[in-house]
Amino acid sequence: MSGTYTLKKTLGRARRGEYQTVHGTIQTPVFMNVGTVAAIKGAVSTDDLRAIGTQVELSNTYHLHVRPGDDLIARMGGLHRFMNWDRPILTDSGGFQVFSLSSLRSIKEEGVSFRSHIDGRKIFMGPEESMRIQSNLASTIAMAFDECPSSVADYEYVRRSVDRTYRWLVRCRDEMALLNSREETINKDQCLFGINQGAIYDDLRIEHAKRIRELDLDGYAIGGLAVGETHEQMYHILDVTVPHLPQDKPIYLMGVGTPANILEGVERGVDFFDCVYPSRNARHGHVYTNSGKLNMFNACHAEDDRPIEEGCDCPACRSYSRSYIHHLFKAKEMLGMRLCVLHNLRFYNRLMEEIRDALDDGTFESYKRQKLEGMENKT
Amino acid sequence: MSGTYTLKKTLGRARRGEYQTVHGTIQTPVFMNVGTVAAIKGAVSTDDLRAIGTQVELSNTYHLHVRPGDDLIARMGGLHRFMNWDRPILTDSGGFQVFSLSSLRSIKEEGVSFRSHIDGRKIFMGPEESMRIQSNLASTIAMAFDECPSSVADYEYVRRSVDRTYRWLVRCRDEMALLNSREETINKDQCLFGINQGAIYDDLRIEHAKRIRELDLDGYAIGGLAVGETHEQMYHILDVTVPHLPQDKPIYLMGVGTPANILEGVERGVDFFDCVYPSRNARHGHVYTNSGKLNMFNACHAEDDRPIEEGCDCPACRSYSRSYIHHLFKAKEMLGMRLCVLHNLRFYNRLMEEIRDALDDGTFESYKRQKLEGMENKT
Repeated sequence: MSGTYTLKKTLGRARRGEYQTVHGTIQTPVFMNVGTVAAIKGAVSTDDLRAIGTQVELSNTYHLHVRPGDDLIARMGGLHRFMNWDRPILTDSGGFQVFSLSSLRSIKEEGVSFRSHIDGRKIFMGPEESMRIQSNLASTIAMAFDECPSSVADYEYVRRSVDRTYRWLVRCRDEMALLNSREETINKDQCLFGINQGAIYDDLRIEHAKRIRELDLDGYAIGGLAVGETHEQMYHILDVTVPHLPQDKPIYLMGVGTPANILEGVERGVDFFDCVYPSRNARHGHVYTNSGKLNMFNACHAEDDRPIEEGCDCPACRSYSRSYIHHLFKAKEMLGMRLCVLHNLRFYNRLMEEIRDALDDGTFESYKRQKLEGMENKT
Repeated sequence: MSGTYTLKKTLGRARRGEYQTVHGTIQTPVFMNVGTVAAIKGAVSTDDLRAIGTQVELSNTYHLHVRPGDDLIARMGGLHRFMNWDRPILTDSGGFQVFSLSSLRSIKEEGVSFRSHIDGRKIFMGPEESMRIQSNLASTIAMAFDECPSSVADYEYVRRSVDRTYRWLVRCRDEMALLNSREETINKDQCLFGINQGAIYDDLRIEHAKRIRELDLDGYAIGGLAVGETHEQMYHILDVTVPHLPQDKPIYLMGVGTPANILEGVERGVDFFDCVYPSRNARHGHVYTNSGKLNMFNACHAEDDRPIEEGCDCPACRSYSRSYIHHLFKAKEMLGMRLCVLHNLRFYNRLMEEIRDALDDGTFESYKRQKLEGMENKT
């Protein structure tokens, strides 16, 4: 099998589903926890992830290709074994990082040449290379190799770019089918998600969605958002694009976003989310609560005996006060970062649990309104 | 009650005992895990400490006085509550840090004036101040305020210094008795350990030991070692000093040391140890095994699928390969440090378990020989 999506309930366009994979079933909507280089920043272990209810870990193809090398990870038995995580893993395609992190890139029909951000080494990556790397990593879900044009790129550039991304997607699909059929492949049930592009141009998004849905992939992502456009533009693109993606496959909004973005995305039919915000904010002492964000560096927390959030079941809130966490940040103790990362990821994971419960109960609309009001003007 | 030491067994001078405190019973010999500013460096939580069998946490009076302030910790309910640790805590007196970290110090009979290493603020600390700070911290065991002269200081200087340290100890005892009798004191059963000094001068060590034993304190430490003298000099000082300390009280060798130092110390009658080596080494990727130390940065670990040590029950070895930990260090992921700190502290804690078992079984001598041979020329 590859992935099997089961739609359990709908509320308007919002979807409550399950995605069955070779590494277990994912309850959707889901927020994936980002561990770029096969580790969650902030000294968070996979035992920690299990403790905070993480369903899917997301790692980065480009970073792992550059270091330690996907071939090494394959020899170590794949990413699951390497990082000690037996639940689903999604790997992105490397495309976004090739375009954002590397230097001296040149894009051709075959793929992209660029220099590693680690050692300047010249690397070529195209659809086939991305699939081979992700097959070596043996993730549960591989993402197609795409170009992610700037959301302010002009229409003509984006039109040619999405055409190429479509041709690349066909090559990804063919290469993945080949890889999954080989004896030596670690995960022969690796799923492939295609990525819709088209910047903020409705017609390009819709036309591209219609073309890629014909390829009958395991899932579909919406890429190229949360890269400079307004929230309203993002929600508008979801409004016009999601209806043209297959309703019997999971839909993944890449790199998004704030709790509000997620609630709006769920309402518009999105099943999968990922974002570095919760862990990155946590490392800077910014933590989420249902009444807004707190900055743990602020002196107001120095003698506050309360946990970050009353009633929160995360490892930070169960055992430690704001006062102690404030002290850890002031003293530059790594434990402060770790506790805040655990809190923020638990906040996001629990947000998704609440969303799923509200969809199950048919109360999503009122749940969403209350949640947004609580955080209003504060996040 | 304050602390009650029960000697369960002796083998030569080596002692197998128990130290009963208001925060639970400590099995001795014991290695205390150092969390200088009320946290173990490397993002290690108190849940982690419980998982690796830590009996006693050690925090630093000077550091906590400077930041966040012992008065704040008292208002938060004491150190146990502040850092979420319900087992015994030992606080050092601040003396060693006053002499090693601060600048512009001036020593008088009353105490020491110095400037904070954090903000340059002028601070005065004497025996009474140290006791009041430690009473605010409400640790299980407070250490007396002493001067720690250099092990290469001349005889006359050390003679005058240990005289003053004796007078300071009397003042510490009186102040602690007063503090423990007060209604508002958080831990009215706080123990006080005196500290033997005398550098490497046998007669000064012995005379000082004889004088301080008369004060009938809760325990006795040997300070001023592991600060520049040779291992042989250290062992010699233990040989000549320990017999003059009370045998019905625990004996603590401060700031020591390597596994070999600990085995030699146990043989000479020491019950308590502490050292920053295991956690500091871990943060630099240096890990202990029964066949010597490994440097996790070394390329030889890049594809090594074995744990740091086969059969080790620490959270790193139960779940992760050398290959993965090497990758974490190369990628500067904090999780690498945390896993190595957990491994090294577990190595030390298990070393003490093995030592206690060997004392119980009467096999300490052969155990010690085998352990040292295994690590020979490698640590």
